[in-house]
Formats: sequence, structure tokens, C-alpha cells
Amino acid sequence: MDFDAYLDALASAAPTPGGGSAATLVGALAAALCAMVARITAGAPKHAAVHAEAAAIAADADALRAAFLALRPNDEAAFGAVVAAQQLPRGTDDERTHRTAALQHALAHAAEVPLHVAGRAAEALALAERTAELRNAHLASDVACALDFARAAFDAAAANVRVNHAYLRNAATIAEQSNRLATLAATATARERAARAIIAA
Amino acid sequence: MDFDAYLDALASAAPTPGGGSAATLVGALAAALCAMVARITAGAPKHAAVHAEAAAIAADADALRAAFLALRPNDEAAFGAVVAAQQLPRGTDDERTHRTAALQHALAHAAEVPLHVAGRAAEALALAERTAELRNAHLASDVACALDFARAAFDAAAANVRVNHAYLRNAATIAEQSNRLATLAATATARERAARAIIAA
Repeated sequence: MDFDAYLDALASAAPTPGGGSAATLVGALAAALCAMVARITAGAPKHAAVHAEAAAIAADADALRAAFLALRPNDEAAFGAVVAAQQLPRGTDDERTHRTAALQHALAHAAEVPLHVAGRAAEALALAERTAELRNAHLASDVACALDFARAAFDAAAANVRVNHAYLRNAATIAEQSNRLATLAATATARERAARAIIAA
Repeated sequence: MDFDAYLDALASAAPTPGGGSAATLVGALAAALCAMVARITAGAPKHAAVHAEAAAIAADADALRAAFLALRPNDEAAFGAVVAAQQLPRGTDDERTHRTAALQHALAHAAEVPLHVAGRAAEALALAERTAELRNAHLASDVACALDFARAAFDAAAANVRVNHAYLRNAATIAEQSNRLATLAATATARERAARAIIAA
């Protein structure tokens, strides 16, 4: 993917890509930084005691990066479906009923995708904690950057869950998705706090 | 720039690119999101009262995005110079003296570049506040994402200033750069807080 072309599309007045899509890129940057710290540590003789864990982190980080990138088109498609539903005709009662149902269905899915991104961002924060535990002091600032990016990806994804809830009418769906988001947020905060304590030590 | 190739380079054991370089991309995403919100608002008849300001924000956001992207190679070159200085010979007293001087010079510059990135990130937070003031409620989540990304870019850049200070011996340079960073941090925090208050209202 060409980054400059992506930025042009993001900056344009076209409805997609938007903030939810961009969050997947920020999450991918966090995962790649964890992989870098793990790979450098895995190649340093003085860190021999953690080489196996460093290699495992690098592999997990590569998989997590791929997961973030795979979610980007899903986010754009889900938001595109909301825009398409909004543009359905609403001249007759039947049309209005159909449009409302289509829009509500699209909104629930458009909240579900950033919920998955938030889940991956919580995983990125947990992975950054494992990366911090490698205790490669020379790379503590890169772990800090990974934490900053993973946190931003989480918060951006969470904002995109909530914006869809503002238009969603199904209280059960809102409650269920909000509960999952709250559980992820608690995990994300705990893992970030633990990781920052390690790199500050 | 191919984003997947960049992520591969970031995730590799090569010393550059690292977190400081990645911070410029996150900052560019924040600027592009402000541009998107401004352009959509500038095209919406109901926001006619702010069309001139929206057009001005879009132009400023495009310039800020370019400034972030221009800083990326600077960050990679500055950190590369530190790595090169570290690898200078240190067999004789003269070699050690030369290596120390070269390394200290490289470290001061390697702190200066992320300080510029932090300055741009503070500008991005101020721009996000202006974007929030357009009060396009439909796009509040995109403004929130821009704030999340600009804040992460700021914090990541700040971490890269400080990591160079840990190895820098010139107390005057450290004090001068730390003062500038503290001033930028105060601006960043004030602008972010004001912007979040607007989108929460």
C-alpha cells in the first residue's frame, strides 16, 4: 500500500478511509516496533537468557501486524455500508422501513469492526509488556513508542465503536458491545501500566 | 513510500527506522484526518458559516502533513549518525577523544530532530482544536482519532528526545532542549484538553 496515496485518500472529502481505518495502521506500527525490539534483543549475546522469548515475541508481533492490516479493508467496507444505507430512498413507508433496517444492521457491523481493532490494540499493549520484560534498556524508548501507538490505536478504535452506538437503536447490541469494549479497556490499561512500570524501572 | 516495506524495515533488526521515524507517520495521519474533517465540512451547506476557516484548516493540515513526512528521513539520518559514531575505533587515546566528540555531536542532533517532531505534533494538537471548533458533530470521532494520533506522535517524539539525553554529557544542551520540550508539552496538553472539551460538549 502506498502511504502517500493513502494519506491523500484520508485527507480527502471521501467518507472512507477515516479514523477507524487509520487506527489499524497505527496499531501495525506498534506491532512492528515490538518485533524490532525483539529481533535486536534476539541477536544480542548479552541477552541470551531471553532469546527464546524474544523470538516468540517477534513471531507474535508479525502475526499481530498482519491482523491489523487485514482489518483495514473491513473497516472501510463496514463504514461504506453505513453510507450506502443512509443513501437509500425514503419516499414511502416501505422504503423508510427498509432503509432503517439496513442502516441499523450496517451500524451494528460498523461498531463490530473497530471493536475487533480495539481487541488487537489490547493485544498490542500486552505484547509491548512482554517486550518491555526483555529488559533491553537501550531500546526502552522504542518500547515506549510502541505503547504510545498501541494506546492511540485502542482509543481511536473505541471512539469508532461509540460513534456508531450514537446512531444505533438496538439497546441490547449497544450493551453487549459496550461490555466487551469495557473488558478490553480494562485489559489495555492494566497491560500498559505494567509495561510503563517496567521501562521506568 | 510503500507502507508494507516500511513496516518490514521497522520490524527488522536494523537500527533504522525506529520509533522516532514511525512517530512522523502517526503525526501525518493526524494531520490528514484534520484535513478530511475540514474538507467534508467545507462542502456541507449547513456549515456555511465556517467554510472559510475549514478551507484554511485543510491547507494548514496539508502543509503540516508534508512537514511530518519531511522529518522522517532526518530522524533516520540523525540516528544513523549516532550508530556510525558508536562504531568509530577506540584503540588509542586520540581515537577515543575523536569518537567521544563525534558521538556527543551526533547525540545532540539526534535529540534535536525528535524535538522538531514534537513541535509539529504540538501544532497538530492545536490544529485538531481548530478542527473541533468547526463543530461538525458527525465527524467528532475523526477529530478524536486525530487527537489520539497527534498525542501519540508527541509522546513518542518526546521519548526519543529523552533517550538521547541519557547518553549526552553536555548539561547545557540537555537543559536547553529539555526546556523547549517542556514548553511544547504544556502547549500540547492545553490544546488537547481544549479540543476534547469541545468534542465532548
